[in-house]
Amino acid sequence: MTSGAAYAPDPIPAPVVGPGDFVFGAARLDHGHIYGMCEGLVAAGGTLRWVFDPDPEKVEAFRARFPGVRVARSEEEVLDDADVRLVAGAAVTSERCALGLRVIEAGKDYFTDKAPLTTLEQLEAARVATARTGLKYAVYYSERIHVEAAVLAGQLIEQGAIGRVLQVMGIGPHRLGTGRPDWFFEKDRYGGILCDIGSHNFEQMLHYAGAKDAEVTHAAIANYAHPEHPGLDDFGEAGIVMDNGATGYCRVDWFTPDGLSTWGDGRTFVLGTEGYVELRKYVNVGTDDGPGHVLLVDGQGEHHLVADGNVGYPFFGQLILDCLERTETAMTQEHAFKAAELSVRAQQAARVLTP
Amino acid sequence: MTSGAAYAPDPIPAPVVGPGDFVFGAARLDHGHIYGMCEGLVAAGGTLRWVFDPDPEKVEAFRARFPGVRVARSEEEVLDDADVRLVAGAAVTSERCALGLRVIEAGKDYFTDKAPLTTLEQLEAARVATARTGLKYAVYYSERIHVEAAVLAGQLIEQGAIGRVLQVMGIGPHRLGTGRPDWFFEKDRYGGILCDIGSHNFEQMLHYAGAKDAEVTHAAIANYAHPEHPGLDDFGEAGIVMDNGATGYCRVDWFTPDGLSTWGDGRTFVLGTEGYVELRKYVNVGTDDGPGHVLLVDGQGEHHLVADGNVGYPFFGQLILDCLERTETAMTQEHAFKAAELSVRAQQAARVLTP
Repeated sequence: MTSGAAYAPDPIPAPVVGPGDFVFGAARLDHGHIYGMCEGLVAAGGTLRWVFDPDPEKVEAFRARFPGVRVARSEEEVLDDADVRLVAGAAVTSERCALGLRVIEAGKDYFTDKAPLTTLEQLEAARVATARTGLKYAVYYSERIHVEAAVLAGQLIEQGAIGRVLQVMGIGPHRLGTGRPDWFFEKDRYGGILCDIGSHNFEQMLHYAGAKDAEVTHAAIANYAHPEHPGLDDFGEAGIVMDNGATGYCRVDWFTPDGLSTWGDGRTFVLGTEGYVELRKYVNVGTDDGPGHVLLVDGQGEHHLVADGNVGYPFFGQLILDCLERTETAMTQEHAFKAAELSVRAQQAARVLTP
Repeated sequence: MTSGAAYAPDPIPAPVVGPGDFVFGAARLDHGHIYGMCEGLVAAGGTLRWVFDPDPEKVEAFRARFPGVRVARSEEEVLDDADVRLVAGAAVTSERCALGLRVIEAGKDYFTDKAPLTTLEQLEAARVATARTGLKYAVYYSERIHVEAAVLAGQLIEQGAIGRVLQVMGIGPHRLGTGRPDWFFEKDRYGGILCDIGSHNFEQMLHYAGAKDAEVTHAAIANYAHPEHPGLDDFGEAGIVMDNGATGYCRVDWFTPDGLSTWGDGRTFVLGTEGYVELRKYVNVGTDDGPGHVLLVDGQGEHHLVADGNVGYPFFGQLILDCLERTETAMTQEHAFKAAELSVRAQQAARVLTP
């Protein structure tokens, strides 16, 4: 065992712009991810000017976290502000594309919570709009871009620490808890579990394997144990074969037990020709070690790297600069869309398991 | 975190018979698993009388470990001994069925290394022979029956510790190393990776889920990085849907990195409606904790149970008693065959991935 000192993370990113250099707004607060999205942009130097949501309670809660923000009376008020470069939104999943099309129509970049859309028709509309305008439909795939262990894994793989990537396997259990809104249980609105939670995993498969396309080889969903929510998929699994010959597999579910010390024991295993990486993203189960663990095994040994506090989140500064300089450093548009496409295709192809 | 004191393993099994009560022989030493098979039976009270292999070097090595054993001049000498109740064999995989049919024809029970066979024709012959005679074609699925963490997991699941089992996921990396015999790289002889290493995993899926049958939904194999061994599958994956609605997935490979402190970081994840179990069978990677870890998360908390030294291997004593009393406590014949059938079917259905 070593502490893996040879594998130092890249420097923690600093803000990339000063106050007022990159003004953005937040519209639609249906999912709490909007907080992480805005915090990431603010930490990278972005200036959060506006918030809009039809629900005043959501707006008040948001203002408590971002006291400097102005409350817009309508979505148009945000879109009409010529200073606003980007609008961040966490609408109900099925409405994310429509919001994005309005944002793009207003001449601004869009940054949406995942899953970014729920149908192939929406995907086509988003592809057309971005191709026509050159504007961005960026996606907050938080389980990779806003998790330091996942960022560090990407850096290690990029450095060749495990050789050529052969397989990416993800386990994404989540806690259902109480108090989730109605739309969360209506499949037409949240999109199904492989579209929703699955999208994180498809994005990671493509990213870590360095692939551009993939075929869904198997998918399944179930509602095993939540008859009170007939629209809920409480289980999903899917496999893909990528265009570079690597494979991906994920299992996602809503079965985090009450006794787990956090909301989910999310794992990612990346197998390479020269080693493998395991991410224990949110808990090192059975220990008091906290989150953010990267286990790297290579030709030299077993390395336990602690990512949290040592890596940061380069995505947000890269996204700001991408918007200002019209580059694609944070994530290419096609990558963001391809992960969404696989999510929708897997959901549509899924066989329904019955107990 | 707790030590999981509420989850005490069953008592470590003691020998079930005295010297001479259960005489058995060993024939064919092609795989080193024969040592574990014989040690398990001896520890349970079995009396190892004979060893046969055409290779005198293998026989000498075996005698060094089991000094009391008699060296047979032929397989017949073992089969002709009326005292011998069972013959244990670890032949080349493709020859295991033929050996078993000879053992059964001689009126004795057979105990073979896994995979127990390599083709559906062999399976049919084995089914017919066992059905006709009532004799046993038992299988050493070592990664469950001879791994204390795996035995403990079975006890916990049986007690209802995780509720109803929904999914069983296995990761079975192995180290290729050097010095393996030629047959190991000839697909007609070892059967392919899903037949070989995969068989452990299909057996565990059926066992932990309590299923009797399953359908292979996806399978893939590859030789990603061993062009010097064109017959080797260095990667395999497969998914099944079981007859009780639970699913299983496994990834098996020959990519254990040199830096790992043991031959493979074998894991099993069993998801239930009320909790989950993770097995870290051979190493708790990144620690000096040794092998044999069961992580159990349930409604009460996260429990780290250390299985090694506390559980034992009830399979062997149960098998001896099954042979003496004509019961099926250790493992039913149909379960042993069904795992083999899924292994062969997955191998046959596998798409071949290319880099």
